[in-house]
Amino acid sequence: MHILVLNCGSSSLKYQLINMDNESLIAKGTIERIGIEGSNLVQKVSGRENYVLEKPIKDHIEAANIMFNALTDEKVGVIKSLDEISAIGHRVLHGGIKLTESVIVNEKVKDVIRECFDLGPLHNPANLMGIEACEKNAPGKVNVAVFDTTFGMSLPEKAYTYAIPHEYYDKYSIRRYGFHGTSHMYVSRETIKFGKLKDDAKVIVCHLGNGASISASIGGRCVDTSMGLTPLEGLVMGTRSGDIDPAIVQYICNKENKSIDEVLNMLNKKSGLLGMSGISSDYRDLKAKMEAGDKDAKRALDVMKYRIAKYIGSYMVALGGLDAITFTAGMGENQKELREDVCAYLEFLGIKLDKERNNVRDKATLISTDDSKVKLFMIPTNEELMIARETLRLTK
Amino acid sequence: MHILVLNCGSSSLKYQLINMDNESLIAKGTIERIGIEGSNLVQKVSGRENYVLEKPIKDHIEAANIMFNALTDEKVGVIKSLDEISAIGHRVLHGGIKLTESVIVNEKVKDVIRECFDLGPLHNPANLMGIEACEKNAPGKVNVAVFDTTFGMSLPEKAYTYAIPHEYYDKYSIRRYGFHGTSHMYVSRETIKFGKLKDDAKVIVCHLGNGASISASIGGRCVDTSMGLTPLEGLVMGTRSGDIDPAIVQYICNKENKSIDEVLNMLNKKSGLLGMSGISSDYRDLKAKMEAGDKDAKRALDVMKYRIAKYIGSYMVALGGLDAITFTAGMGENQKELREDVCAYLEFLGIKLDKERNNVRDKATLISTDDSKVKLFMIPTNEELMIARETLRLTK
Repeated sequence: MHILVLNCGSSSLKYQLINMDNESLIAKGTIERIGIEGSNLVQKVSGRENYVLEKPIKDHIEAANIMFNALTDEKVGVIKSLDEISAIGHRVLHGGIKLTESVIVNEKVKDVIRECFDLGPLHNPANLMGIEACEKNAPGKVNVAVFDTTFGMSLPEKAYTYAIPHEYYDKYSIRRYGFHGTSHMYVSRETIKFGKLKDDAKVIVCHLGNGASISASIGGRCVDTSMGLTPLEGLVMGTRSGDIDPAIVQYICNKENKSIDEVLNMLNKKSGLLGMSGISSDYRDLKAKMEAGDKDAKRALDVMKYRIAKYIGSYMVALGGLDAITFTAGMGENQKELREDVCAYLEFLGIKLDKERNNVRDKATLISTDDSKVKLFMIPTNEELMIARETLRLTK
Repeated sequence: MHILVLNCGSSSLKYQLINMDNESLIAKGTIERIGIEGSNLVQKVSGRENYVLEKPIKDHIEAANIMFNALTDEKVGVIKSLDEISAIGHRVLHGGIKLTESVIVNEKVKDVIRECFDLGPLHNPANLMGIEACEKNAPGKVNVAVFDTTFGMSLPEKAYTYAIPHEYYDKYSIRRYGFHGTSHMYVSRETIKFGKLKDDAKVIVCHLGNGASISASIGGRCVDTSMGLTPLEGLVMGTRSGDIDPAIVQYICNKENKSIDEVLNMLNKKSGLLGMSGISSDYRDLKAKMEAGDKDAKRALDVMKYRIAKYIGSYMVALGGLDAITFTAGMGENQKELREDVCAYLEFLGIKLDKERNNVRDKATLISTDDSKVKLFMIPTNEELMIARETLRLTK
């Protein structure tokens, strides 16, 4: 039983074909520069040379056609026909308040994804194009939408409500949604499984990539998360500010004579690690600079780590206790010093990192000492597998 | 040794005359509607009837003159001449990054207070008028400026830095300042004194009034605080939103075709408890409504309490431990259920409120059980006394 997973951007299409009998990856590929000069596909299959195809690809429908051809091609393909794909799972950014669970796509679902274009202006239109491209190229195949916002839909009212006039919730569904939901869902559940924790374990997941977010969950159900109406809120990220005094938006607009769209663009694309340091949005660059004595790089990393640690403290209170903290995504998986520095803030709580165990990459690992009061893990995230699992669950 | 304390608003002047030999209040008064029809002074002296004077008062200079007359008046006054006032302490909102401690006023200090008009547009001009009115009416008297931002100036860089381009700090001094500083300074130090804690005790102060903020301090020195560049950030307040996704500002601007100033006005004046409930900004009103079954009132209070509890968790991590939590200001001093509900979130940490001890008002009280791992206090704030103490310290 194979499931195809799609993640479409405005000019890109990423896919993975997964054998769900053993959850193994059969093939994965990326189509880039759709509708732009220089379109190309790269398909990777373990043990083979990469298959590269360069040709004009005018839209997502054509891209999906090329993907299906690459998967079923006699020479470079991995399956004989589309019959071997039992269903297709799509990453969709925003389901608003109407789509609160993964769902089999029909016309009504597509209408709601369309209604949520305002909430996910960069992603939802592309996600919908991906679905429609599959409908055209693989008619009759079941498509499943898995939303990045689903995990946050279990938040209690006190956690998702902003302290603004309630009419804005009624009129525009302004609330905390949270993003990276598929990653948080996967990693929080893997933490319980891998860590052999009790079913209702209280888990904090730190998803620390270029975008970064943190979630608190009980038994794999989210109770709080740091991203909000948009992915701007919360932790310090590569180029996003995360939490700031909202009055700063007004202050900079007035001081610099900028429009609000310009300031929000700055907060999304020129802030975070990049903005504070003036050097880079990449942890590795800043670490190297810091070690060479650069104060701007050090400050940027200090602010990021401090904010992560404070969120862990607040989520421990939100959970009323804590069984495990898990680090995942780019920095969370690969930067052991980052994990070490964040956990140092928590030592007074009896939370103890084991430095030797922490010297790890690539595979799920317990990184706390045996006597730590809270278990610490590094667990690689796998959003595609989570989407495939949800797709299987709904189509089995 | 008497010290006069002044707190000027744009059309008001509040004052207290304090005997610093025993820190007792001699007289206090309020002049309202300065420059507006219906100006009046009310002066209160313990054991006497209030002195009320209704007459046109055109500006702060005239108001100060009337205040000094009321204090030295043969019949209603409390001192024979201004000679009995050894110095005057002024509450000033914003000292920017240049004035980081209480300071004796000279021309340079006044220039900096003026430079900070942008940072405290509603308060700093009025505070400066109060200083100049005293210079005019009581020439030669030493004036001391005590800033609401002073307490926050000891924040480490990682706590005061926003993750935005660093040029905005260099150009406009955009950083976390924190407000209610005089209250947090007073209450954190009183907590150590009253609670007989060690000198470097780690204390969280919850200043819960119509404006609300929370601070973390070590030995009475602030290490983090919830209000930011402006008093909008942080906890849920009577009419202020506190923390929100900054992208919400843009979202509402676009959806409602509003200017950024209109949206910020909404976040400052129509949000918080008032906005969420649609009923009132007053805790007592909402509590009554909630008890009558009103869901909007309950939601508003739930969000407020949850946010306070989460901040306590994050500040415990910022402090790396915790000796005491103290509640102060309007709600913090008078609403025992609020204290109870916030502390209920912390029980898993061995933090235990004593319900009987918590049944208190008006005077500093230990409200935790004897076996609580962290001491809990209710301590009434007294910003005027703190200003007087600072004034005495600088002029002794």
